[in-house]
Amino acid sequence: MSKPVPTLEVADQRHPPATRYVTLRGDYGTANFVMHRGGILKEVVVAYEAWGTLSDNHDNVVLVFGGLSPSAHACSSPQDPSRGWWEYMIGSGKPIDTDKFYVVCVNSLGSCFGSTSPSSINPDSGHVYGLDFPDLSIEDMAKAAHHALHDLGIDHIHTVIGSSMGGMSALAYALMFPQEVAHLVTISAAPRALPFTIAVRSLQREIIRCDPDFQNGLYPQDQVPTNGMVLARKLGLMSYRAAEEWHQRFNRARVSPERRSQERFGIEFEVESYLEYNAQKFVKTFDANSYLYLSRAMDLFDVADHGGSVNAGLAKIQTQHALVIGVNTDILFPLQQQKEIADGLQKAGRSVDFIEIESINGHDAFLVDEAHFAPVVRDFFGKL
Amino acid sequence: MSKPVPTLEVADQRHPPATRYVTLRGDYGTANFVMHRGGILKEVVVAYEAWGTLSDNHDNVVLVFGGLSPSAHACSSPQDPSRGWWEYMIGSGKPIDTDKFYVVCVNSLGSCFGSTSPSSINPDSGHVYGLDFPDLSIEDMAKAAHHALHDLGIDHIHTVIGSSMGGMSALAYALMFPQEVAHLVTISAAPRALPFTIAVRSLQREIIRCDPDFQNGLYPQDQVPTNGMVLARKLGLMSYRAAEEWHQRFNRARVSPERRSQERFGIEFEVESYLEYNAQKFVKTFDANSYLYLSRAMDLFDVADHGGSVNAGLAKIQTQHALVIGVNTDILFPLQQQKEIADGLQKAGRSVDFIEIESINGHDAFLVDEAHFAPVVRDFFGKL
Repeated sequence: MSKPVPTLEVADQRHPPATRYVTLRGDYGTANFVMHRGGILKEVVVAYEAWGTLSDNHDNVVLVFGGLSPSAHACSSPQDPSRGWWEYMIGSGKPIDTDKFYVVCVNSLGSCFGSTSPSSINPDSGHVYGLDFPDLSIEDMAKAAHHALHDLGIDHIHTVIGSSMGGMSALAYALMFPQEVAHLVTISAAPRALPFTIAVRSLQREIIRCDPDFQNGLYPQDQVPTNGMVLARKLGLMSYRAAEEWHQRFNRARVSPERRSQERFGIEFEVESYLEYNAQKFVKTFDANSYLYLSRAMDLFDVADHGGSVNAGLAKIQTQHALVIGVNTDILFPLQQQKEIADGLQKAGRSVDFIEIESINGHDAFLVDEAHFAPVVRDFFGKL
Repeated sequence: MSKPVPTLEVADQRHPPATRYVTLRGDYGTANFVMHRGGILKEVVVAYEAWGTLSDNHDNVVLVFGGLSPSAHACSSPQDPSRGWWEYMIGSGKPIDTDKFYVVCVNSLGSCFGSTSPSSINPDSGHVYGLDFPDLSIEDMAKAAHHALHDLGIDHIHTVIGSSMGGMSALAYALMFPQEVAHLVTISAAPRALPFTIAVRSLQREIIRCDPDFQNGLYPQDQVPTNGMVLARKLGLMSYRAAEEWHQRFNRARVSPERRSQERFGIEFEVESYLEYNAQKFVKTFDANSYLYLSRAMDLFDVADHGGSVNAGLAKIQTQHALVIGVNTDILFPLQQQKEIADGLQKAGRSVDFIEIESINGHDAFLVDEAHFAPVVRDFFGKL
């Protein structure tokens, strides 16, 4: 366990104050972390935050995997009172109750918020990895979290819970370490990506790679591919929300004349202004290479790689109880995929609650729709 | 009526051999064409193709408006035996029967396939318009077609029919010239764009404008903004089809190793290869500035501008019979918008057939789904 040397000028934004770091011991007693699709990383760091108190026999750990975008700062704490990305879900008396559980949220391997990523220094070369970072898989994210917990003295998880990309990581974790996971919660996840979802992400990556400032991943930190990242994020935002939500929120409202661009084809509708604001906010902190690697990892993940079929892969999971949540308006990880996870677990004899949430908020619902999500997760933990 | 001087090196591709041209007399007996949102064009040319024979009393004209992408070549002919974009729909014995009707398909004002567009020479300056082209509206496309028909001696339309953007043009035509239109068919159209659809198109435009080769619209013809156009077209293709169709067609199939890019994040899935192939094909002929202008015209169009509300606008239409067709999987011009058109016409006392087509082919269904569309259009014309 040691603090990493910050490798980027934006390190402060990327390392929230309550973040802790663990440098992994690596595989087979070496400092090497062997990647799922080949290649190795050395001196891998996993960033995490934790809330609550670890019980004496270490039986109260809830492991949280987030989506592509967030850091490990899922929840506020005395060290970092800023609002976390899942503030309503985690805390004293909340659905994931930190009075009972020791809640650990890891920053995914490959993400730019403190874990080893393409923007880290390659110890072999002394330079930033960039596109020399090896192929990244969801399985690597699961294994990095697993190694981090072991290095912290935790070898058994009460519940692993993940949303979106984090739901894939949670599935991978439960698949790869079936004896160490008692319960599983997946939210708006997928056993493997559908072609529409692959197409959205592929186009986002191509947009970033086409930005001249991308420079094949070797952009300096004072000239990052901002245009490409803004455009890619806008496409992401379009896929995260349901069309009907925007219809109700914006319809055809125009921005006020003083906020209107004089440029031809500039911003005129409120929906365009919303996308611009949110995309600009995102690109201030997120690293382009991390985005590319995490995005591709989601395309490549396939539960069927673990046994020949999705059901065979899911049958490796040995949880006592599982909760699978999907949202009816999610176009990126659609409801049918949540059903596929639930059905596969059930066929393998697992106890599964499958909950379809009717929400207008699409794939993003778990972030904003407390009224629907909080009771479902609270009930699940209440029953265990 | 005169042939325009080709203004582009790619003119041959952009001027299909059977295309005819009419130079408009203009408004108020001048050579000026006054634009709906201000500005004028001079010596406006409208490109069109026609099939069948005009009756002596000119009462058998079917006017066809296409979507954003196609030329006026909707159907083959002896002069141009190549397959048209609506080959199954138009012809001898086909649903729009050229044995009975004189079918005219116009290339929209602003499109690069022969009608006056941003890639035309501005007679005032002697240079290509580029972004000096005035704001373009759907109403301008309708008026240009109307003037063209009048200059050809046609002052009454049996049926105006349009799909996608062309459906908006058909609505505008029927609204603006209610005494001259007997029947109306709209397919996958909209009385005004929804914010999700505006967002898709806004992002496409921004992608094109961010391509360094765009050069604020002043790109030379040997260095057009290909990257931006390819990316924008891919986003278009993603919005034209339904996710389930790709699921059935591609699922997670990979391209064969010899077709696989060695580049990191290059093409690996068949769905990525499909998008690349189709986008590259498109950008060989389509002009970037035309794309921007046509795309924005669709955002801006609002039937409510013609009377204060969508219903008040639709009430201006005086057709004897209308057919409104929508597709259940269309995410760009969703079914609810077809219903809105049909309901508005019905409320105004018009006779309307509203047909919901169940097709897996999304917004593109009218182009490919002959089995569903041909009988509906055939029945409509059979009843008149």
